Amino acid sequence: MQFAFEDLTADQVTARLAVFTPLTESVRDLVDATIRTEVDPDAIAEAHALITRATALLRARQLDGPYGVRFTPDGIGMPWGNAAIGLRNPIAPPMVIENRGPAGAHSDFVLGAAYEGPPGLVHGGVCALLLDQLLGSAAGADGTPAFTGTLTIRFRRATQLGPLHGEASVSGLEGRKKFARGSLSDAEGVTVEAEGVFIIPAAAAEDGR
Amino acid sequence: MQFAFEDLTADQVTARLAVFTPLTESVRDLVDATIRTEVDPDAIAEAHALITRATALLRARQLDGPYGVRFTPDGIGMPWGNAAIGLRNPIAPPMVIENRGPAGAHSDFVLGAAYEGPPGLVHGGVCALLLDQLLGSAAGADGTPAFTGTLTIRFRRATQLGPLHGEASVSGLEGRKKFARGSLSDAEGVTVEAEGVFIIPAAAAEDGR
Repeated sequence: MQFAFEDLTADQVTARLAVFTPLTESVRDLVDATIRTEVDPDAIAEAHALITRATALLRARQLDGPYGVRFTPDGIGMPWGNAAIGLRNPIAPPMVIENRGPAGAHSDFVLGAAYEGPPGLVHGGVCALLLDQLLGSAAGADGTPAFTGTLTIRFRRATQLGPLHGEASVSGLEGRKKFARGSLSDAEGVTVEAEGVFIIPAAAAEDGR
Repeated sequence: MQFAFEDLTADQVTARLAVFTPLTESVRDLVDATIRTEVDPDAIAEAHALITRATALLRARQLDGPYGVRFTPDGIGMPWGNAAIGLRNPIAPPMVIENRGPAGAHSDFVLGAAYEGPPGLVHGGVCALLLDQLLGSAAGADGTPAFTGTLTIRFRRATQLGPLHGEASVSGLEGRKKFARGSLSDAEGVTVEAEGVFIIPAAAAEDGR
């Protein structure tokens, strides 16, 4: 696993996002339309042809592999390809995490048709995906790297598609293990709870002594 | 939560998939291109305009809400909007589950740039999403409905993006609880393990007596 550096100023990061965010948002909108469309096969074929042209334009120059995670020299993180929070990844809602340190990472977001499992409900596995990211953010907020060891998800009740709130915080530290807890909730309260055990690599633990 | 019925024959289901599968595949390809593109802002704007046109075509007639889960009178399930297995959902890999009953649900699939977490690796939460679906398939294979109560994910080692195998099976039954286990693996063996507890609704448990 390797993090990459890009020599960008904060202004350049903002300018780059201004280019890519509208494109990514348009693909998120297309994903929703693809699931919900009821137009006839001719219109489907016409849309398909436009999408193929758009993809060819974008692939004229591209990365060899996945996006990775990049940092500026000032330490601005650009996890733009991330499946949960990636600003350049159309499958990410994206969850924008407000991170106030280990005491609490939180986010408000809306999940639509693309995140469905049972009819009208958020896929339980999507709840797990978002909670994994939230707990990982809380666990990593002190700057010590930590990898998820175990994640336990308790489904209290069904989570309706729509506006949701997620939060997580560090609940304990024991040797090279960090413990974090979190939950998703709708307007009526908590729907899913999570507990995670995060492992601090031996090298990082020694640095911290 | 409500399942819908559609009066379609098996041939009509196949014909419908023949229309929607190429469209959905083209959007999956666009998602990947959106993450990996390095073209200049003019080309981005041109692609954006094509995508917006495609979305408008598809939205000319559409469902009011999410896709839901539908069945034919013959019991053919069409969970086409599902975030993990939905054939009409571009965010689903899609995982195609071969389900040989409670003894073993399994699937081979390939994860690309859209499923990234740490650089080059599958997002831990995506592993959780796919395992949730696999365990749920195994737990539901006997026809008794069951809802996920608890899901525990153990990350043994990093999962590289690329070809993967997933499997799950029912490991026990205790009153109204079904237990299932599963794993994801790459060419070198298991990377992530999962255990799930599934709850059979009281009404369904009575039917089974």
